[in-house]
Amino acid sequence: MTISVVAVRPPSPVELGVGMRLSIHPHCDNYVEVILGALADLAADGLTESLEITTDELGTHVTALTFPAEQRLADYLLGLIRAAHRRSDGGHVVAHVLLSRGCPGEVRCDLTATGLTAATPIVLPPAWIAATAAWSLYPMTDGEPSIDVIYGAIEGACARGTVRDGMHFATRLSGDLADVVATGFEAWSRVGASVAHVVTHLTLSVGSPTVEHPSPKE
Amino acid sequence: MTISVVAVRPPSPVELGVGMRLSIHPHCDNYVEVILGALADLAADGLTESLEITTDELGTHVTALTFPAEQRLADYLLGLIRAAHRRSDGGHVVAHVLLSRGCPGEVRCDLTATGLTAATPIVLPPAWIAATAAWSLYPMTDGEPSIDVIYGAIEGACARGTVRDGMHFATRLSGDLADVVATGFEAWSRVGASVAHVVTHLTLSVGSPTVEHPSPKE
Repeated sequence: MTISVVAVRPPSPVELGVGMRLSIHPHCDNYVEVILGALADLAADGLTESLEITTDELGTHVTALTFPAEQRLADYLLGLIRAAHRRSDGGHVVAHVLLSRGCPGEVRCDLTATGLTAATPIVLPPAWIAATAAWSLYPMTDGEPSIDVIYGAIEGACARGTVRDGMHFATRLSGDLADVVATGFEAWSRVGASVAHVVTHLTLSVGSPTVEHPSPKE
Repeated sequence: MTISVVAVRPPSPVELGVGMRLSIHPHCDNYVEVILGALADLAADGLTESLEITTDELGTHVTALTFPAEQRLADYLLGLIRAAHRRSDGGHVVAHVLLSRGCPGEVRCDLTATGLTAATPIVLPPAWIAATAAWSLYPMTDGEPSIDVIYGAIEGACARGTVRDGMHFATRLSGDLADVVATGFEAWSRVGASVAHVVTHLTLSVGSPTVEHPSPKE
């Protein structure tokens, strides 16, 4: 008897449509210098390896070419905000982030061909920078009530200790920048294990003059 | 024969969960002055009437207390970006906007109680400011394939002449700032007539140093 073995190559992060759009806003006259410097820091720290990065006037798109894709993207985002914060002398920096999976760009997606990914735990070293964030999650369930998935994800995120309260259309997170970033990434990854197309938006703020940030890790 | 007439009060925009979260980023040292000045301009121009506006460190939430809610919110957003652009001497200003309907804040929504709204055409005077935007639409269909709703909305938006091309996870819009804002609002309003819970995100950019903006209306 002959058994035929067909090697099925698992889909890559790019084929799964796992990626991130982000824009970062240092609120200072020399914002171009701060952004370009922060991007140089990322490359010097090796945080751009195995990533495909394209930039246009509306922001930057980042895709990981290899797994663990979510971890690589989280490392990149954390590194970028840290570097921009440092290079603007601890000034006010806001990053807007869109995490998506299941729709590779503008190509009409074929979710049946790509399937689901496993949830990935996100591990980030403490940044020692206090941060707040507005977090939204959009599971395109096409069936199961999406609000149930959203509330389940919020409950799961509470384990990180960063979930503060509900805002209009978003959930407020606060804590160390690394924990806040990890909360959004991990929930997005976890929902992606059961919902093929899921998007998360994060507005992350550090160094805001309008808030007394609590010291992280207190 | 007696016919009983029960006056059913239609739901308000607040009860329908129609609202906007926005953050605006003038890229200059005096960004606080620019933002506060722009907000004062809006009040002086009467663009804050019938609106409920709350601000926190992550941005501003705006709800219209009366209809046409979508038009009032669009007027406010256009006025804010124009004023910030003017007050920063034509500098680089980016606004991130979340438009939502169907989920009034963190309250678990009862869509069956609120029902659907009619689509509202959005009419805005030309701003004579060139703008680009990244536009995303998330219909929480809970049934009908959401991607069909999204593609239908993009086709509808093409009538405005602002739709440029697909980007990763978003559609690129460009043209006069007023047309770009109207495109996002109108598509969101139109989808809301058939899908109770629908969210749109817009990243709007004016005065970017990294792009040669075509003159609007050429």
